[in-house]
Amino acid sequence: MEITNEVVRIASGKMNSEFIRILIANGFSSLKAIKCADVFLNNSLEGIYSHGVNRFPRFIKYVKAGHINPDAEPSLVFRSGSLEQWNGNNGPGPLNAMAATERAMVIAAESGIGLVALANTNHWMRGGTYGWQAVRKGFIFIGWTNTTPNMPAWGASDHRLGNNPLILAVPNADDAIVLDFAMSLYSYGKMELYRNEGRQLPYPGGYSNEGILTSDPVEILKSWRPIPTGMWKGAGLSLLLDIMATVLSGGASSHEIGKKEIESNLSQVFIAIDLSKLSNLSSVAASVKSIIDDYKESVPSGENSEIRYPGENIGKIRTENFKNGIPVNKGLWDKILSL
Amino acid sequence: MEITNEVVRIASGKMNSEFIRILIANGFSSLKAIKCADVFLNNSLEGIYSHGVNRFPRFIKYVKAGHINPDAEPSLVFRSGSLEQWNGNNGPGPLNAMAATERAMVIAAESGIGLVALANTNHWMRGGTYGWQAVRKGFIFIGWTNTTPNMPAWGASDHRLGNNPLILAVPNADDAIVLDFAMSLYSYGKMELYRNEGRQLPYPGGYSNEGILTSDPVEILKSWRPIPTGMWKGAGLSLLLDIMATVLSGGASSHEIGKKEIESNLSQVFIAIDLSKLSNLSSVAASVKSIIDDYKESVPSGENSEIRYPGENIGKIRTENFKNGIPVNKGLWDKILSL
Repeated sequence: MEITNEVVRIASGKMNSEFIRILIANGFSSLKAIKCADVFLNNSLEGIYSHGVNRFPRFIKYVKAGHINPDAEPSLVFRSGSLEQWNGNNGPGPLNAMAATERAMVIAAESGIGLVALANTNHWMRGGTYGWQAVRKGFIFIGWTNTTPNMPAWGASDHRLGNNPLILAVPNADDAIVLDFAMSLYSYGKMELYRNEGRQLPYPGGYSNEGILTSDPVEILKSWRPIPTGMWKGAGLSLLLDIMATVLSGGASSHEIGKKEIESNLSQVFIAIDLSKLSNLSSVAASVKSIIDDYKESVPSGENSEIRYPGENIGKIRTENFKNGIPVNKGLWDKILSL
Repeated sequence: MEITNEVVRIASGKMNSEFIRILIANGFSSLKAIKCADVFLNNSLEGIYSHGVNRFPRFIKYVKAGHINPDAEPSLVFRSGSLEQWNGNNGPGPLNAMAATERAMVIAAESGIGLVALANTNHWMRGGTYGWQAVRKGFIFIGWTNTTPNMPAWGASDHRLGNNPLILAVPNADDAIVLDFAMSLYSYGKMELYRNEGRQLPYPGGYSNEGILTSDPVEILKSWRPIPTGMWKGAGLSLLLDIMATVLSGGASSHEIGKKEIESNLSQVFIAIDLSKLSNLSSVAASVKSIIDDYKESVPSGENSEIRYPGENIGKIRTENFKNGIPVNKGLWDKILSL
């Protein structure tokens, strides 16, 4: 793909129908194509282009290559009370993750909390998708995935840890507070975005191949040496998340995923907690509001400081993109049209 | 207390009996004194002095002042399936947290996963204590607490967030992997340690009152402006952990805790997952070993780099302190003897 800076704005209806067309042409049933397109569309509408429209061609490439099986359905491996193990059977990551989130909510509706561990799935795109899915129905959500090894241990130069995104989400009035963060200070999607725009990262985000701390995304994308979120802490959290996802799902760990041809056979965990089961349900909304109100009264440390909560801007971006169309690199969009 | 650099080594048996004597003299039953002393002793043996022996005088001060009620027992508020809400009734934090961890394991043994949310409790000292408690019995543990506001939101200069420690723990052969980390890059206990030793932090850990990034723990302890772990990410995680602990327990949030005379009425969450319930139990140990073996093969980035997993050194420190006695500042130990 030729990279130019020309950006076009694509109406969401148009983008959606193109996604559906291409998915159906690649073996997806109509129903699955609609569900899957919806994830890519929503991620794009909400400004997470790296795991929306920008990644759609790669998703289709993996389908064509047989890495992602559009027909596969997740299957229940084992149930023990409020905990279930599922096999994703290498089906489409977003569909598997949506099904797992839904299933965790069904369990939680029965017993307060539900945990679904999913093995052998594919990239779920944006983890926040499943946080939003759960909070819209009144659930708290905690979920994470392992990834291919793409980050060094703290004190190491080779990449043996995944950057294993972690998602925590709670309902908040008519929207939500959704934290969705990779264990590398900058996600690969974010670094690619800065690279494509020819910009430096706001803070040093990793090391070059020569071991020099740098804000240049090009250097870090070459070295696979991003700094972990919180240095030794994010590296430790990455390790624990990988162990937990692997053990709970009975699936592959990051270092096993690293041996695959592409990033596949991921292990993921989905925990839902049903707020409607709590004795204090009637005061939950007021509690959240009180915390957020206090948070928003923070004194900015500089003139340009904005005090935002995770996910706060999503609604605004969604409205803007819905109104004006979703910004896409023209070359990329032309490529999608040709799929 | 006069601060000198003179360090004495106290035998663990001696330290334990002093703790028990003082606790009983301050209204603890023999059984509760033994349990509570055990937490302070173990934290000290395992090198977490800031939340062991070093904090014992403050714990007793709070008992004497009536902030911590040695007679209080946690009481069940509400049960919904695998989720329970308990009231800590302002009892001793370590005893409440041990009871909540035990209860989460009992639920998990019934239904795979158990969540206990605890309101109105006191400082639990070292969160890792409860991770070790759970993994020793074959459970995965996820837990966190909120704290008094002691960290700014990202982009803010006033401290409205807690540094809300998060603990993740998994069994590993005959020990465990236990991650226990505060949402400030350096915990207050760590910063106090560096201050007392007259040392600078290894990395800039916060801002001075003048807004200057600094590695001087004295400046950060004055300003209450530690950097969040992973900057905006740790600040976001802190916010979500506070909301979840508050909502799930029906207890106080960080900003409400900030209005109390001392840090009290904390809200905490304890999640246990019973590995013996998994279909893949027989391969769990091998999975963890395989991940750790790969991790330990990391290539060090420098001559002095050590690639360790969270909690790896605990056993060594414990053995050393058990053999040689626990190192304590002499002035502090004299003070304890006089309690």
